[in-house]
Amino acid sequence: MSEKLSTQPYKGTRDFYPADMRLRNWFFGVIRRVLETSAYEEYNGPMLESLEIYAAKSGEEIANEQTYNFTDRADRRLAIRPEMTPTVARMVAAKMGELNFPLRWFSFPNMYRCEKPQRGRLREFWQVNVDIFGCDGFEADLECVASAIRLLRAFGADESMFAVHISNRRFFNDAVSAIANTDAEDCRKISKVVDKRNKIPHEVYAKELGALGMTEEQIARLDSLYSATVEEATAVCPESVGSAELLQLFEMLKRIGLADYCVFDFGIIRGLDYYTGTVFEVYDKAPENNRAMFGGGRYDNLVGLFVNNGKISGVGYGLGDVTLENFLTTHHLIPATFGADRKVLITRFADVPYEHYMLLQNRLHENGITASVYLGMKKFGKQIDYAVKEGYTHVITLGGSELEKGVVRLKELSTREELELTVDEAIARLK
Amino acid sequence: MSEKLSTQPYKGTRDFYPADMRLRNWFFGVIRRVLETSAYEEYNGPMLESLEIYAAKSGEEIANEQTYNFTDRADRRLAIRPEMTPTVARMVAAKMGELNFPLRWFSFPNMYRCEKPQRGRLREFWQVNVDIFGCDGFEADLECVASAIRLLRAFGADESMFAVHISNRRFFNDAVSAIANTDAEDCRKISKVVDKRNKIPHEVYAKELGALGMTEEQIARLDSLYSATVEEATAVCPESVGSAELLQLFEMLKRIGLADYCVFDFGIIRGLDYYTGTVFEVYDKAPENNRAMFGGGRYDNLVGLFVNNGKISGVGYGLGDVTLENFLTTHHLIPATFGADRKVLITRFADVPYEHYMLLQNRLHENGITASVYLGMKKFGKQIDYAVKEGYTHVITLGGSELEKGVVRLKELSTREELELTVDEAIARLK
Repeated sequence: MSEKLSTQPYKGTRDFYPADMRLRNWFFGVIRRVLETSAYEEYNGPMLESLEIYAAKSGEEIANEQTYNFTDRADRRLAIRPEMTPTVARMVAAKMGELNFPLRWFSFPNMYRCEKPQRGRLREFWQVNVDIFGCDGFEADLECVASAIRLLRAFGADESMFAVHISNRRFFNDAVSAIANTDAEDCRKISKVVDKRNKIPHEVYAKELGALGMTEEQIARLDSLYSATVEEATAVCPESVGSAELLQLFEMLKRIGLADYCVFDFGIIRGLDYYTGTVFEVYDKAPENNRAMFGGGRYDNLVGLFVNNGKISGVGYGLGDVTLENFLTTHHLIPATFGADRKVLITRFADVPYEHYMLLQNRLHENGITASVYLGMKKFGKQIDYAVKEGYTHVITLGGSELEKGVVRLKELSTREELELTVDEAIARLK
Repeated sequence: MSEKLSTQPYKGTRDFYPADMRLRNWFFGVIRRVLETSAYEEYNGPMLESLEIYAAKSGEEIANEQTYNFTDRADRRLAIRPEMTPTVARMVAAKMGELNFPLRWFSFPNMYRCEKPQRGRLREFWQVNVDIFGCDGFEADLECVASAIRLLRAFGADESMFAVHISNRRFFNDAVSAIANTDAEDCRKISKVVDKRNKIPHEVYAKELGALGMTEEQIARLDSLYSATVEEATAVCPESVGSAELLQLFEMLKRIGLADYCVFDFGIIRGLDYYTGTVFEVYDKAPENNRAMFGGGRYDNLVGLFVNNGKISGVGYGLGDVTLENFLTTHHLIPATFGADRKVLITRFADVPYEHYMLLQNRLHENGITASVYLGMKKFGKQIDYAVKEGYTHVITLGGSELEKGVVRLKELSTREELELTVDEAIARLK
């Protein structure tokens, strides 16, 4: 037994000690309140799914390269979920006849991505997923973008801190067709190049588009769209349904007072093949953290992978805990303490029978007061040190002489004020 | 695309639709409140762990047979956690110098067990794990048993519905030694037979003990312990530390008023090899569901697997969501509704510009009222049907004529009472 096991968590995963957990519970709590106030309902699904549901629509790359996958004893190919959308589409498909559409759903799943960990991207992460199912109109796209803004605003963030970059896949295809006269497959290939434009030198970008048959003049026209307003950009393909959708969405965002948060961005593609209409990404505006934090969009065909006549459209987004924490830290939006409630440590003396402490603890619990007996037997000073380190606000002392007199001593740790009280009086004071 | 993917979740796992999720959130919410009131702190750890931490102490059987395990690209052998205790022991070991002992910790992890699903045992489950670290004395054992009772009582369960069966591993070893004059290894083998006594015919049980060298008379003496009181049983080995621990624990349980919930049971072993002292299992008393629901005990050597001088003792238990739900259902302890709060659907008419609905929704949210605009455009009657099915309590109507008059119509769905009000009046009424 001299060979010791490693105490480190698996690479790219985290241990959540109580302080870490309080932070995560705080920010998921804020999100839950916002979503529940907007009548979203929580769901969850299994951590393991059949690998094929990712292969079918998220693209082979994600399915094979980016998931932890393996074969079970019955030879089923399984993956640890790398994202939630295929699961929720499967769940909607399974109960299509019973569900009451439109649905507003959310979830806080943990998931795994099999890749090299880097800033903001770990192998295990938690993500709030928000989806609306069964509404084909602009109303769902609008609500989806508005809810993303609502979430960040609930933390105190405003338009100086983040922006929602919006585009539309239908518009994108029509604009590219209008400029380069391409078919759907070429268009998809061009979208992959556009998607990585910010990550590669412009020469490489132009060369890749050239290899797809675009002329220099066409590339220049495409380039001009990146700085275009939504009105200028949609003028390239005015007949496009996608153009109409974009204009309507921006008009509605303006009318409900969210224009300052939103910007048209031709470069927003979203890597996943399943998006069909509106796509958006939320950017952190801080110079030191200027990047897409999260995004989402409309996917109209995903439920159809599971059932015939599965024409249920979806619009949604997912926001990871690591990204959110980086954003809140960057903008100093994390409070110093979370609900520092009163919390009472009952210190212990050897000359008092132990049941008195346990029964006193019960009395406090029954009155809704967070309390615990010091476990074990150490010197009084050590017990007080323990209380201070653990964030207890009060200490109750019950020694032999207090027991005889039928009282306790209640001490407030911040003021060091100490009072001799009956248990009832102490409870009344603590309440 | 005519070949459709299955809509079923992976065998032994569950989809949690909103109604299922409300139930789970309700019972984990009750548990969280009870534990937090007793000053327990929440933690969590990664879903994937190195396989060796299970092999090292949970026994090879669990590690290899009962986990989902695989090798990652860097050839690390990983397992999806089948239980939480090795993770929490690793976490405690990693920060042993910084942590403020004793710790009272809890967690709600999801985990996977690779076995045939059966009633009360699924492949994926959630479990509340409660552990106390760093208290060697009876106080931690007592608090641990008391907290298990507190949890079930918080749901309205009482001593007519469940019982805590208690024994002690040290006592067991000493009692078996006293009866059969065995060494530690034989004792361990005998414990495996005792552990399955209720699942096998008595002849098989007696034969297996005989094969381990026990005489018929010794087996008869062992048998008599199953119906013994704690005083009778401990008389077999009165000098045993385990006997003293058992007697003290039962005495304390009596003094703090929990004797009616607790019973000595020689047959309680707990399969896992890591237990060293007190062991207990909580039994459902319902005739139709009479079985061990969950259990735990003291494990003094687990942290030591990770660090030298890692002498941090632990006492803990874990309670699975499937088991808890079965228990609550059996005893009719699940309320018909969970917090049926007021929830307002804003119905929609085509002749009113949509921003009015979104802005009204914002007003309600700002006042803390759960509200949503009906997404899409259907006939009024269909929108009302939707509201009823989704559990909305109120409907707000804002048509063209209301808009002109600057009012809305607020309808309470249960009474069908409808009032024409200004938005401020409606908000005041809903608050």
